[in-house]
Amino acid sequence: MKLGVIGTSWISDSFLESAKIVNKFDFVAVASPRMESVEKFQKKYGFKETYTDVSLMAEKSKLDVVYIATPNSFHYEQTKLFLNKKVNVICEKPITLSRSELIDLKETALLNGVFFIEAMRSLHHPNLKKLKEFIVDIKPFRHASFQFMRYSSKYDAYKNGEKPKVFLKEFGGGAVNDLGVYTLTTALYLFGKPLKVTSDSVILDTLVDASTVITLNYGTFLVTCSSSKVSNSYLMNEIQGEKESILLNHVTHLDKIIKVNDEGSCTLLDDRIDHDMQYEIKDFISIIENKDIQMFEEYLTYTLDVLEVIEKTRIK
Amino acid sequence: MKLGVIGTSWISDSFLESAKIVNKFDFVAVASPRMESVEKFQKKYGFKETYTDVSLMAEKSKLDVVYIATPNSFHYEQTKLFLNKKVNVICEKPITLSRSELIDLKETALLNGVFFIEAMRSLHHPNLKKLKEFIVDIKPFRHASFQFMRYSSKYDAYKNGEKPKVFLKEFGGGAVNDLGVYTLTTALYLFGKPLKVTSDSVILDTLVDASTVITLNYGTFLVTCSSSKVSNSYLMNEIQGEKESILLNHVTHLDKIIKVNDEGSCTLLDDRIDHDMQYEIKDFISIIENKDIQMFEEYLTYTLDVLEVIEKTRIK
Repeated sequence: MKLGVIGTSWISDSFLESAKIVNKFDFVAVASPRMESVEKFQKKYGFKETYTDVSLMAEKSKLDVVYIATPNSFHYEQTKLFLNKKVNVICEKPITLSRSELIDLKETALLNGVFFIEAMRSLHHPNLKKLKEFIVDIKPFRHASFQFMRYSSKYDAYKNGEKPKVFLKEFGGGAVNDLGVYTLTTALYLFGKPLKVTSDSVILDTLVDASTVITLNYGTFLVTCSSSKVSNSYLMNEIQGEKESILLNHVTHLDKIIKVNDEGSCTLLDDRIDHDMQYEIKDFISIIENKDIQMFEEYLTYTLDVLEVIEKTRIK
Repeated sequence: MKLGVIGTSWISDSFLESAKIVNKFDFVAVASPRMESVEKFQKKYGFKETYTDVSLMAEKSKLDVVYIATPNSFHYEQTKLFLNKKVNVICEKPITLSRSELIDLKETALLNGVFFIEAMRSLHHPNLKKLKEFIVDIKPFRHASFQFMRYSSKYDAYKNGEKPKVFLKEFGGGAVNDLGVYTLTTALYLFGKPLKVTSDSVILDTLVDASTVITLNYGTFLVTCSSSKVSNSYLMNEIQGEKESILLNHVTHLDKIIKVNDEGSCTLLDDRIDHDMQYEIKDFISIIENKDIQMFEEYLTYTLDVLEVIEKTRIK
């Protein structure tokens, strides 16, 4: 398949290294506003075409799939642009900033006979399925807490009076959009849709959230999803049954899973997978090759549910 | 000082073992509805008088101090009863279930020239003062999470259709009243009063909370206080600066405090103190002996602030 890539940050590097492993793509075109980074990517990965203008790439390049890793606020319009050119799209999280945009993209894709997928790596990670199997043992669930709190190097720039995009509202920045989506995706994959959402945030003067705690209420248990871009959490994530808990070291990497109770602990999984974006790529290729509308819609449902929760946190 | 004790559960044992260390009390009177446990306590600690009726004890016994460890819903009236008999009172947490009751007790105490104190062991623990000194190093605070979640043996009884008092509303039961007060006291001691309180609970059919998450908003950081009586947390508690965190193994025992950052960790304190109720006893004796109204009011303030937060969690 002929692949185009938009965006040349570290995440595009990760994607391309994973894409090499999957070995299904011809690296055809790369786009970024900065010609120097486009040329670096061209040299590194052997792209045939380079663009500093995404519209021009959409117009001229003959692609089967495009990977979009631009600031969050560009995802919707760029995905729509390529879907309308009958190009399948894999777009970084969050693919849209609202449910209505996502529903619009779905209609656009179906109309054009192509597919898209959100590059939510954890949702396609084989260890997430294993986690879901492990936790059956500790039912009934009584509590869970997930935290993805990571001090952003861009926060230093923010404090220096610069305006890094990850801290700007107009670029869809903030802790929930960047990191909270991972905690919510894991929660919704494991437990389904909550009955009620409660949240609070620390808001920066750029009007994005520096940190947010979201509490999901499932009637018989609560799940807290904490995200921050201005501090680090060194705690594990925890899913509590009545007398046993399952701990995971990281809500996205999912490489260490431990069961613990008052008698001690045992490791259920200790399996570091490098280049874990390969799984989202494989799933997406499978959707495209099999025209698998059911799988397409299933993954969309998780994204829709996460957006529904996020939209509820905005209603104050 | 002549000591009376009301209640004969394990916590009264803990108190009396600590009281022996402080060595300021004559063990004069013990009361409990069950004569067999009163006699057991009499034998074990050498109490001179035994009562199955608290009013009778208040009437007949000549006491300087009474320790109250009865179900939560009795605390207010029993404390008031003894204050009005000019007996100083040390009462288990939560000493009252509302701010207005606590304010009433304060007036009653001042009117009668005696004092009372809530037996909030962590607030008097010397390691809490040390913790407050340690955390100055990691300022500015960006987040904290405290959890006291402990599966109650009484929950098995509850599930068997019995009605244990710790799960009954009329006895002031539930997770926040029992365990959440510890997380809140530590939070308010370290950070002061929050600007805003958000919370959600799982409510049992007896109308008490099985578990609750309270998020305290301090403007530039959030603090989550999670409590549960139907599951265990195996996570540490965490106070996050921007690039360093301080972890504590237990919000009440306060016996292990660790500083951690991306380079590694160091232990700031590893100091298990047995009989840690000795510190609340010593502080209370100091208040009584020095007629220290300032110290009396200072400790009351923490209790009032905790009750204010809890009252906000009830407003839905």
